[in-house]
This record gives sequence, C-alpha cells and structure tokens, in this order.
Amino acid sequence: MNDTDVFAIESEVRAYSRAWPVVFDSARGSTLRAEDGTPYLDFFSGAGALNYGHNNPVLKRALLRYLERDGLTHALDMHTVAKRDFLRALKEIVLNPRGLDYTIALPGPGGTNAVEAALKLARKNTGRHQVLSFTNGFHGMTLGALAVTGNTAKRAGAGLPLGYTTPLPFGDTTGSGEPDFGYLERLLGDSGSGLDRPAAAIVETVQGEGGLNAASFAWLRALREICDRYGVLLIVDDIQMGCGRTGPFFSFEPAGIVPDIVCLSKSISGYGLPMGLLLFAPELDVWAPGEHSGTFRGSSPAFVTAAEALRAFWLDDTLTRNTARLAGRLSARLGSIAGSRPGGAVAVKGRGLAAGLEFRGGDVAEKVCALAFERRLLLETSGPRDQVVKLLPALTISDTEFEAGLDILASAVADAV
Amino acid sequence: MNDTDVFAIESEVRAYSRAWPVVFDSARGSTLRAEDGTPYLDFFSGAGALNYGHNNPVLKRALLRYLERDGLTHALDMHTVAKRDFLRALKEIVLNPRGLDYTIALPGPGGTNAVEAALKLARKNTGRHQVLSFTNGFHGMTLGALAVTGNTAKRAGAGLPLGYTTPLPFGDTTGSGEPDFGYLERLLGDSGSGLDRPAAAIVETVQGEGGLNAASFAWLRALREICDRYGVLLIVDDIQMGCGRTGPFFSFEPAGIVPDIVCLSKSISGYGLPMGLLLFAPELDVWAPGEHSGTFRGSSPAFVTAAEALRAFWLDDTLTRNTARLAGRLSARLGSIAGSRPGGAVAVKGRGLAAGLEFRGGDVAEKVCALAFERRLLLETSGPRDQVVKLLPALTISDTEFEAGLDILASAVADAV
Amino acid sequence: MNDTDVFAIESEVRAYSRAWPVVFDSARGSTLRAEDGTPYLDFFSGAGALNYGHNNPVLKRALLRYLERDGLTHALDMHTVAKRDFLRALKEIVLNPRGLDYTIALPGPGGTNAVEAALKLARKNTGRHQVLSFTNGFHGMTLGALAVTGNTAKRAGAGLPLGYTTPLPFGDTTGSGEPDFGYLERLLGDSGSGLDRPAAAIVETVQGEGGLNAASFAWLRALREICDRYGVLLIVDDIQMGCGRTGPFFSFEPAGIVPDIVCLSKSISGYGLPMGLLLFAPELDVWAPGEHSGTFRGSSPAFVTAAEALRAFWLDDTLTRNTARLAGRLSARLGSIAGSRPGGAVAVKGRGLAAGLEFRGGDVAEKVCALAFERRLLLETSGPRDQVVKLLPALTISDTEFEAGLDILASAVADAV
Amino acid sequence: MNDTDVFAIESEVRAYSRAWPVVFDSARGSTLRAEDGTPYLDFFSGAGALNYGHNNPVLKRALLRYLERDGLTHALDMHTVAKRDFLRALKEIVLNPRGLDYTIALPGPGGTNAVEAALKLARKNTGRHQVLSFTNGFHGMTLGALAVTGNTAKRAGAGLPLGYTTPLPFGDTTGSGEPDFGYLERLLGDSGSGLDRPAAAIVETVQGEGGLNAASFAWLRALREICDRYGVLLIVDDIQMGCGRTGPFFSFEPAGIVPDIVCLSKSISGYGLPMGLLLFAPELDVWAPGEHSGTFRGSSPAFVTAAEALRAFWLDDTLTRNTARLAGRLSARLGSIAGSRPGGAVAVKGRGLAAGLEFRGGDVAEKVCALAFERRLLLETSGPRDQVVKLLPALTISDTEFEAGLDILASAVADAV
Repeated sequence: MNDTDVFAIESEVRAYSRAWPVVFDSARGSTLRAEDGTPYLDFFSGAGALNYGHNNPVLKRALLRYLERDGLTHALDMHTVAKRDFLRALKEIVLNPRGLDYTIALPGPGGTNAVEAALKLARKNTGRHQVLSFTNGFHGMTLGALAVTGNTAKRAGAGLPLGYTTPLPFGDTTGSGEPDFGYLERLLGDSGSGLDRPAAAIVETVQGEGGLNAASFAWLRALREICDRYGVLLIVDDIQMGCGRTGPFFSFEPAGIVPDIVCLSKSISGYGLPMGLLLFAPELDVWAPGEHSGTFRGSSPAFVTAAEALRAFWLDDTLTRNTARLAGRLSARLGSIAGSRPGGAVAVKGRGLAAGLEFRGGDVAEKVCALAFERRLLLETSGPRDQVVKLLPALTISDTEFEAGLDILASAVADAV
Repeated sequence: MNDTDVFAIESEVRAYSRAWPVVFDSARGSTLRAEDGTPYLDFFSGAGALNYGHNNPVLKRALLRYLERDGLTHALDMHTVAKRDFLRALKEIVLNPRGLDYTIALPGPGGTNAVEAALKLARKNTGRHQVLSFTNGFHGMTLGALAVTGNTAKRAGAGLPLGYTTPLPFGDTTGSGEPDFGYLERLLGDSGSGLDRPAAAIVETVQGEGGLNAASFAWLRALREICDRYGVLLIVDDIQMGCGRTGPFFSFEPAGIVPDIVCLSKSISGYGLPMGLLLFAPELDVWAPGEHSGTFRGSSPAFVTAAEALRAFWLDDTLTRNTARLAGRLSARLGSIAGSRPGGAVAVKGRGLAAGLEFRGGDVAEKVCALAFERRLLLETSGPRDQVVKLLPALTISDTEFEAGLDILASAVADAV
Repeated sequence: MNDTDVFAIESEVRAYSRAWPVVFDSARGSTLRAEDGTPYLDFFSGAGALNYGHNNPVLKRALLRYLERDGLTHALDMHTVAKRDFLRALKEIVLNPRGLDYTIALPGPGGTNAVEAALKLARKNTGRHQVLSFTNGFHGMTLGALAVTGNTAKRAGAGLPLGYTTPLPFGDTTGSGEPDFGYLERLLGDSGSGLDRPAAAIVETVQGEGGLNAASFAWLRALREICDRYGVLLIVDDIQMGCGRTGPFFSFEPAGIVPDIVCLSKSISGYGLPMGLLLFAPELDVWAPGEHSGTFRGSSPAFVTAAEALRAFWLDDTLTRNTARLAGRLSARLGSIAGSRPGGAVAVKGRGLAAGLEFRGGDVAEKVCALAFERRLLLETSGPRDQVVKLLPALTISDTEFEAGLDILASAVADAV
Repeated sequence: MNDTDVFAIESEVRAYSRAWPVVFDSARGSTLRAEDGTPYLDFFSGAGALNYGHNNPVLKRALLRYLERDGLTHALDMHTVAKRDFLRALKEIVLNPRGLDYTIALPGPGGTNAVEAALKLARKNTGRHQVLSFTNGFHGMTLGALAVTGNTAKRAGAGLPLGYTTPLPFGDTTGSGEPDFGYLERLLGDSGSGLDRPAAAIVETVQGEGGLNAASFAWLRALREICDRYGVLLIVDDIQMGCGRTGPFFSFEPAGIVPDIVCLSKSISGYGLPMGLLLFAPELDVWAPGEHSGTFRGSSPAFVTAAEALRAFWLDDTLTRNTARLAGRLSARLGSIAGSRPGGAVAVKGRGLAAGLEFRGGDVAEKVCALAFERRLLLETSGPRDQVVKLLPALTISDTEFEAGLDILASAVADAV
C-alpha cells in the first residue's frame, strides 16, 4: 500500500491533517519537522497540551529512565511509586503553596473524562440534574461533556437531544464592565422560574475553543458569589487554560476564587501524554470505590513526566513571570496588528499566552492560518465561525522564535485581509 | 509529607489499591514488583490492557527509539509517520488478511471514547436514538457509554436517569443452546410495540466485567441476522476481548460475523498506553471534519508500540495457536477445580484466556482473590455480585508461570470455600 | 359560509369524519341519526365511552334535573353535593362490595389525565423513573402517556424521543398458554441488567386500541406476582375495558388481582361526558395539596350522570350477567364468521363485549368497516395495522339490534374478503 | 357512610376544599350557594373558566334544549351539527372580524391537552425539540405541559427531570419599561451558544397562576419579533386570559401580535364544561389523521354552550367595553387599597378583570382570602409563594355585586395586615 492510500483509510472526521497537508515526523521545543525535514514553528502547542514545548529534554530524560528500568507502565488505580511521586509533587508544589485543600481523582486519560467525572460528582453530591453552561464553552465530545458544550455542529453530532443543561451568556453582558448576572438571579431566586436548581455551573476562564473569550476576574468572582449564594457547585474547566497557559498555574488564581471542582488535562503530563485529573473539595468525595473508573486512569509515563514538569517549572515563579513578559509582548504586537486595520475589523482576544485576533469578515482567519502555514508557522482558528486566529505558543518558546512567529503572523494578516 | 499521607489525598473512588495494599514499582512480562522487591505473578493483565505482558522488550525497544529520536509525541489527528506506520500495519496485518474493509477513526485515548464515538456514529447514520444493550454489559463510564452499561451501582453514579437504551438478556436464554431472540423479534416486528426502532445494538462476545459470560457463536450469528433484518447496526465492543484475548485477533471472528462498528482499546497499543480505536463500514463514514474530536486522539507512543505489537505477534498464527493451547489447559484446570467442589457450587466461565470460576455463595470469589494475593498472585473478581474469579493471564505467559498461577488458584479455592 | 367550508377549517388531524362522511345530529340508545334523519346502528359506542348507550333516559333525567335547578356546574375540587353523591355511590356500590379499599383522585377530564397522574404518583412513591409498558398498549396522547403507548405513528407525533419506559411483549408469549415472564425476570433479578428498577408497570387487560388483544387471567396474575416480588407498582388502565365492558365492573376482577393504581375514564360518567378518575391504595397517597391539579377535575354534570349510572346498572349483577350472555352470543357469531373463511384468515379477538375479527391480509378490516357503514352500521378498525374489526356495542343494546348488527357484519365480511 | 366519611376517601391532592370548607350545591351568575343555603359572592370564577358567570340562563336554555332533543352528546371528531354550529360561530364571530386565518383543532377536553398538542405540533413542524418558557408560567400538569411550567413544587410532582425546555424571565427585565431580550438574542444569535434552536416559545400575556404578572404590549411585540427573526413559533397560552378576561376576546389583540399557535380552554365553552381548543396558522397543519386524538376531543354540550356564548357576548363590543369599564373601576379600588398601606407593602397586579394585590410579607394574601371567605367572598391566592390575592370576577357581574366584593376585599385587607 502506498503512503497516500494508507491515510485514505482514516475517517473523514480527521481535521488538522486537512489544514496542514504534510506528514510530520519529529519535534523539539517549538519546532515540528515534516518527514522531508521541513521545520515548522509551532504556535499551536497541541491545542494547549504542550505548554512546555515538544519533547522537553528534562522530562524526556525522566521518561526514558522510567521506561528503561521497566517502571510499571499500566497500573489502573493501584498504588505505585510513580503515582505517589506525582501526587506528592502536586500537593507540595502546586496545592499547598496556594492554600488549596483538594482531593485528587484520576478520572481517565483525557479532558472529557475529567469533565464527565466532575458532572457525575456534582450531580451525586447535590441530587440535582441541571448544570449551567456558558455560550461558546467547550468541554468535550462524550455525551455528558457535549451537553455542556456550546458549538452547534458538535452538539448535533450526538444524534440525541442534549439535556439537563441550561446555557448562559459567557462573560460581561452589558459592555459596562460590570458583571451582569441579573438574568440568572431572576431564574435562581424565583421558585416559580422553571429552572430546576442546578447541581453546578461549569466554566472556562478563557474559552480556548470558543474564540479566546476571556472572562473578567470580576465576572468570575460574581459567578463564584452567585454559586455560593444558591448552593451551586462551581466547576472550572482548566483543561486548556491551566498549567500556566495564562501565567499562574491555575487560570482562576488571579480572580481570587476557589472552585469546588477543577478539571485538568492537556498540559498536565507536560509531555503530551494522555492524562486527566480532577481536583475537588474533600467534602465532595462521596464516591464509592470504583463508582467511576477507567482502564487508563493511571498511566505511569504520564505521572513521571507530570511530576518532573512540576519540579522543572513550578518550584518558583520564573515561568509565570516569563509568561507575563511574553504575554505583554504578544499583546503589544497583536494590538499593533489590529491597530493597522480599519477600526473594528480586527480585535485582540484572550489572556496570557492564550491570545488571538478576531476578524469581523468571512473567512479571513482561515486565510491567515493558511498563509502562515505556507510560511511554516502552525496556527489554528477558533470560535463558532472560525473567526479567530488563535495563538498558543509554548510557554518555553525562545524570544527569537516568538518574534519570528509574530512577524509571520503580521505578514499573513497583511496579505490575507 | 510521608508516603501514607500522600496516598490519602486520592479520592475514595480508587479501587484496586484496596484489594492489593502494596506499592508497585516495576514490571516485566507476567511479574510485577512492589517497591520492596516482592514479586507478584500477574493473572490480571491490566484488566485486559496487557495481553502481551508488561514492558515487552520488542515494543519497549521501538518506543525508546522513537522517544530518543524526538519522534513527535502529541499530534492530534495530524498526518504523522508514526500514525501512517500504525495504519499500514493494521490494514496489512489485521484487516486485509481477514477480508475486513473497515474505515478507521481515532476517537480518543480510551475505550469509553470509542464507545461514545460508536454510538454517535450509529445515531447519526440512522437518525434514530434507541440503542439495544445487554445485561451485564460494560462499555464505559462517560454518560453515553454508561447508559448502555448494565451494572446498577455504576449507572447510579451518573446522577441522571440514563435513557435512549433498551436492555436485553445476554446470551442464550432458553438453556436449550438455541439462540432465543423471540422477545426482541416481537418488539422489532410489531409497529405497535413501543420500542422505537433502534439505531444499533452494542455487545461484547464475552463479558469481561460482567462475569465472563460468553455468548455462543450461534447466538452472535442470530444477533447479527436480526440486526440485518431490521436495519439495526451491530457494534461489537471488543475492547477487552479483542487483540487476541480469546485466541483470534477479533473475538467475533470464529462466530463468522462482521460487525458494522468495532470498538478497540486496552491491548491495542500493546504496551498499556492509552489508545482507542474505531473500525466501521466505509459507508457509515458520514462525519464532518472535527465532528468528533479529542486532544489525545493520536498519541504517537501508542501508535509506535501498537504497530510493533502487530508485527511482533500477528504476522502469523503462532500466538493464536498458543492461546488456544493455553486456553485448553486453563479450561481443564478450571474444570478440575470446579469438579472438586459439590455440584453447582462452582462453574467455569469464559472463553480463551478470558476465563474464570463462578461461585454460588456469598463472597467466596473475593476470599479466593485475597488468598491468592497473599500467595502473590494477582487476580480480580468480576460480575454484578463480584461472584466470579477472573483470570486474564498474559497471552505471552510462560508455561511455568501459568501452572504456578493455577496452582495458587487451586490452593486458594481449596482454602476459601 | 356554507356547511362544507365550515368543516374545512378543522385540522387534518380529524379522523372519524373521514370514515363516516355524514353529519350526525342526534342519538338514543344504540342509534345515531345523521342530520337528514338516516339512522345508524352503533357498534362503536364512542370508542368505549358509551357503555350504556347514547342519552340513556334515566341518566338524562338526572342530568336535566341538575341543570334545571342550577346545580353547580364547574367546581374544580371544591366539596359539592354532586361530588359527594358520586363518591358515595362509587364507594358503596362499586368499591365496598368488591373489598377494594381505594383512595380516589380526580386527575382531569380524560383518560390521558388519569394516566399522567398515575405515572406521577408511581414515580413519586418509588423515587424511580422507569415504567414498564406493553406492546400495542394505548394510554393517551399527552407526553407522559404517549411514552407508554406502543403505536409507532402516534409516538412519532411527540417530536421528541420518548423515554423512561421499557416495552415488553403483551400477553402469553410462548403459545403454550403459560405466562412467560422469564425475560422480565432476567432483567429485574439481575443487578447488572441495565434495567433500572421500574416504578410501575402499566397494562390494559384487553387492548382496545391495540387490536383487542386479551391477556389471560393467568398472565395478569403472573404480572401481579412479579410486580409484588420486585416492589413494582401495578397500574391497570381500565379506561376502555372498565365500567362493565368485559362483564364485571373492573375488567381485572375475574383475574383475581388488585392493582395498586387503576385509571378510569370513558364510560365512568355514563353519558359520554368528560371525566377521569384515579383509584389507588391509600398508602400511596403522598401527594401534597394541589401537586396535581386541573381546571376540569370536578365536572358536576359528569358526577351526576356517573352516580346515576352506578345506581342504575351496578346495584346488582343484572348487567354483568346480560353482558356475559351477549358476549357468548357475540363469540359464537364471530366464531361462525371466522369459521366460514379459510383457516387462519380470520381470528376472533377480545373478551366480553370488546371483541373483534382480525384479518390476515391487507386492508380487509377497513373494507369491512366501509361496507358496514354503507349498510348503516358503525364499526371501527383497531390494531397497529388497522387489521382488526372492533365491536364495542352498548352493553344495553337490544337483542334485535344486536343480531341486526351482527348480520350486517357477516354480510360485510362476506363481501369484503 | 356519613357525609364526612365520604369526602375522606378523596386524595390529599384536593386543594380548594381546604380553603373553603363548605359543601357547595348550586350557583347562578356570581353567587354560589352552600348546601345550607348560605350564598357566596364569586370573585374566583372557576379559576377563569366562568367568565360569563355560573349557569348563564341563555346558555343554559340552549344546553337543555340540546339535551332534551337527544342531540348527540359524545362524538369524538365526527362531523356533527353541534360542532359545525360552533365552528361557524367561531369563524364568523371571532376569527374573521379579527382577520385571523386560523385552522382549528380539538385536542382534548382541557387546557393541558391543548398545550400538549401545541408543543407536539411545534416540534413536528420544526424538527426541533427545545421550547422556550417563562418564569412563573403555568401551562398544565401533564408531562409535556409541566415541563414548560415554572412552579417548582408542581414540577417536582413529575418524578422525572423535565427537559427540552429553557426558562426565560417573563416580562420587562430592566425596569426601564424597555423590553430586554438581550440575553435571549445572545443565545439565539450565537451558533456556539449551546442553546439548540428552539421549536417554539410558549407564553401567557398575563400569568394567572404565576401571580397576575402582565407582560407589556411592547414586550409581547418584541417577543413576536425575535421569534420571527429566528424562525421560532410563538404559542400564546390564552387559556385563562382569553375569552374576554382582559377585555378583548384574545388577550394578545391589543399588543398587535398574531401568534402562530393559540391555546384556548377554560371559558371557551362558556358554561364551565370541559373543552380545549387549538388555533394555528394553516401552513402548520402537518398532522396525519389521528396523529393526536382523544376520547373527549368533541363534547357536544360544550360546543352548544360555546357557540351560544359567542353569539350572546361577542357579536358586538358591548362586553369588551363593559370589561374595560369594570377594569378601570377595579384598578382604582385596588390602587386605593394599596395606597392605604405603607409604600411597597402592597402592589397592584394584572390587567383587565384579571387583577390582584401582591403583598410583600409572609402569608398576608392567604389571610386576606381566609377573611374574605368568612365574609362570604370567594378569592384565591396566586404566585409562587401564594403572595398575590387574585381577583377574577365574572365579566357579567353586576355593579352592586362588584362593589360589594371590593368592599369585602378592602375590609379583609385592613384586618389582615
């Protein structure tokens, strides 16, 4: 079978291989290489799964050592040395310094598993079924997670009406900068509202798939406050924005809120290995043994790189400060690109190193990404109409690579519009 | 933090660490080692995820080589050299020789993702919502998969009524050996039955979690036939029984049926790495690009070991013949153990190297497993009342290990009853 | 507007006016008259709502007297003289002599209201959601009742997937005459079955809309027994078969069972006036005041004729014995008609004065009804394919009318086949 | 059985008999009489089912004449003289003069049947499942209607999660008098909102059960406009507010909107007889014959009084003008009562002759109703916390009775607060 025929047996559901019609082979840091050796600069980072770049040498060393010495690879939820090492690192490096007293569960190897487990836990704890979700939220493709996801086309893929959820507008609604939960308060505060008391609200602080919409900290605080007032559990899906993407380890830290349940995945393993994680207030731990399970809920290679990543990047605030520095630079460059276009045509979106440009018209964002790819920069679109060019460079990108990527972006925008 | 305190931060949902209260560290072939060096003989195989044993050296070599040369680790559904190599091996080594013309999709890194994707695909293709499931079936813990899972306690964990599914008795119902679908025919054949025409039926050939219930080939053929007659898609969940567990690569091969959709996971990577796979008839490929997606739907390390495993074990029928040989020996030993007990107290269950002993009374199976653990054999229970001792030795186990394990089992049964 | 134009503003959903394209004006006993004076013999009885014939003079007198003296017409669930009179008659004439200690609720003015209330009550009492229903059952057209109704076309009218119900084959399944609940037992008795423990089973003793399928008394007893064993509430929908249609007041009496909940409507008012009634075991009365309500839940004209009908027909067993006599005659005539056709072409269905002829081929039943209409006999079809000619003569029909109707039926069958 | 024992067999679900612990016997106009002859002035009107008072002599005469001449009583959806007469009156007296080209369906004998049919029709026409409902809306107690009803306690009675609906705040939300659908627009206009495109919105113009909340005409127009813009069908539930309750025949007339579907019941028969009616745009008539049905969908006595009521009250605008006059007087009296209390303690609610007083504190409204009953005035409470005293006098009440009732109300308020 020739090479092309091989790929033809894959379902039409594949997506990235359409935008980037090359065969990739290897990667290091912020560079991917196609099989012909062509390098591509990566401003995509595995949709947020590679915050520390590809194949980080420190993590790689730890992983190789573990594999070479025949460390247990597959362990379900047995006690293992690898898991203990990870749990300790998470507790001592991440949770304790932040005063977060969370219980930890391993819900399966991906973000959608973590979301499904979070929803199950919230419903079991409250005995309620409704979950509040937000416009343009994205939480996963399995039935429970899809029901709280906004995208119409993806929802339609369920082949079932998706229920037990109520969507609310994400972020500030008035344009005044003041959080506006008047609508929700009217529903929650009225025993005749027809909104059955929700078990939980699930929210991203910045919507990665939804178009890099960033909720203000004030809005997040107001959401936390209304959840407290009505006994609704607050789930933060920090799958894409956690692990430093916006600067701090958890994206909700600067808002000064503590969610009841936190979903992590993507960059938590640090090496692009499948892993999902659930953190929640200890009093919510009402699960019976095995009530939620999964074959790959404890993948040792991921524990190994995850623990190593915490030690490599989170023992101090070096990474967070560097992210802030790059984010400032990114914001300035994006502002400059947007400023060069007619007023309102291009808007800067996002927070930290999850930022982008929203284009008012047609398919400009897709054109920008296509031009960038020709110029060997990997960028993807985002948003319900693919109207946003989304930038997710590695947090560890070099300044040179960073500027080079932004130069390509600027030229692509100039040529696309 | 001391070691015990570390594990205490994990949720009560953990299960295996309760039955086996040691800390495992490394593994090779059929042996796990605790951190104090104590070896344990593995008749559990990661609940079916380790058909080729732990850390198989051939696969390990391929994996290390890939990681060392900085092969792309995380790739979503981009075209990669690693994926192409796996797709080619799957096509040439598994599908073509069996005359199976399946399209391949990568639905996410675990079995439940494959099941969710299968259900979505079946519903989208048919425009129907009902799915037939079977008593004691187990298909996963996310909302869609849980709805077709039988276990009452696990279903209750959803916190929602699980709908759009209709359960049917699994396997032969009459005791006569004749497949009995009279009940289902009455529902499907009657436009006044109240059973909305199903999109699909989802079935395991042998129910691993449900108690090692093995459907007869005649029953599977009858199910295939009735699905054909009523235009219902047949989904075989071969997550635990595929990849040679019962002998042939696909467990449904000896029944002479071709499912419309096949779910694979667990042992498909060969090395215990998270991976899910969906195979389906090409005409069902109605998905739009990205309609089902997932961050870890293409994990290169898993592709590398999966391709290597196909080349190492499936180029000829050596493994299948050896599995048949061991299964024959297993069946004899189990028969002998059962025969040594009063009539009806113990029954032999399963097929191939997925076999077990069902105990009529109370918690005998749990006692057997506890005694076996004391004697350094890892065994788990199965079935709705944990009434079955389940044996899933590696297909690559040595004869010496195999007999040693069975000796421990025999002694544990003798002491437990 | 001319007469035809007037009828043209009615929705296409109308049905009976298609089969009987005349304009009816008046009625008495078993005779309807079209506006041109043409008399039609009624073997249809308002689909079971007119067991005592049209405008029975005794009931009419009571109704006129009540209206003339300005008895309260509309009363919701206030205490009224009319309601008290009805409750007393129901208690003293129907319930007490049968040893039935039922609490009474007035759930709304039709059968579907009674069914909805029964389902709500069963779910509230058990805290469960699933309801077992039976093939070809018919329980109403509102969303809850439709979900337990079998007919595919009617179900499709919901525009929603209908859930929380599990259909089972109705009546004896083996042909051996032995009730066969083996399938259901396998589901209920297995904690891994995936059938969430049901709140209730809802059943008709003879399925009026479903094709006059009569459950054997042994089957009904077996159903009662299995419900008892698994704590499932048994709801008998006696809307069409109650009030003497099969002989006794309640159709379940000769089976020797006592349902937990009974739904009545149709002939309960005795005069064709809208009325629904719910009877249930007192310990099930967990409703809060107003938890189920409805504007027309106490319609005094219906109470007046209902009480009068109980006094007129149910103080002794005259009516029941007469129904048995006519049913015997009906059975003989139907047997004779069926016997005159080739073996298997025509089958006799039903019980008591709910009986019919099932035709194997195409649209024979519809032809029979059309020919009967030409000959001034009103008959309707029944069954999922309209394959049954359904006879529901008034219980009060004269022998002359009865024989005349059967003669027309015989001739219509002779000409139609 | 003594009289008290008789009533004791009725379920605890009864409600009105608790507030008014007497046994009513007869009624005429605005006066009910208990069995001991005590007269009660009726400001309740059968919860809106008696807009023309009790036993109106003109309607009574027509009804008696029909019954005496043995007019067909029960007719399902056959063509009858009585139905034709009603359809003609509805068309010529109500629809044509208002330029309303509606198709008519008879969905069953109560309001909840009309709502269920409306929802089914909307879903079938659009192929969508979601329905928008509004806080404190009340639409009925069957499963489909309950799902769009706001009251928490009544919703809980379903024993099932109620789905496929999205609640929205009713009426003006900003306090500025400007309709605010900004929230809804954000959901409808965003393909990533997670709000599946709704089939319909269902609304009352004044919420009778919900607390006499009156939507402004501007808000209703804005709702109509947004429904048009997004292809959402607008269902007006005019069951309690139609038939002249707020002045015009349809309560939505002065708003200048034309709903796609209108539900009528309660006062449509004019005599308190069970009847439901559905009006809808002809192009929505996609029903197959019998797709929605019901035993009491054509009750001739109701047709007779309904037709007579249209002729008696709606041939000219006398009733509407009188209602406006009384409503003005009512508004003044209520304003005066409210004005006599401290600011904000009492608010005037409603529109036309559906008006009331909302009390801020505790159970004042219940006390007012109890005191009024002692003084022989029938009043009920309304609203999610029973905080509103609801006045629904007959539209035909005499000025003397009207003032007498308002005097009692004033004294009851004075004594209750």
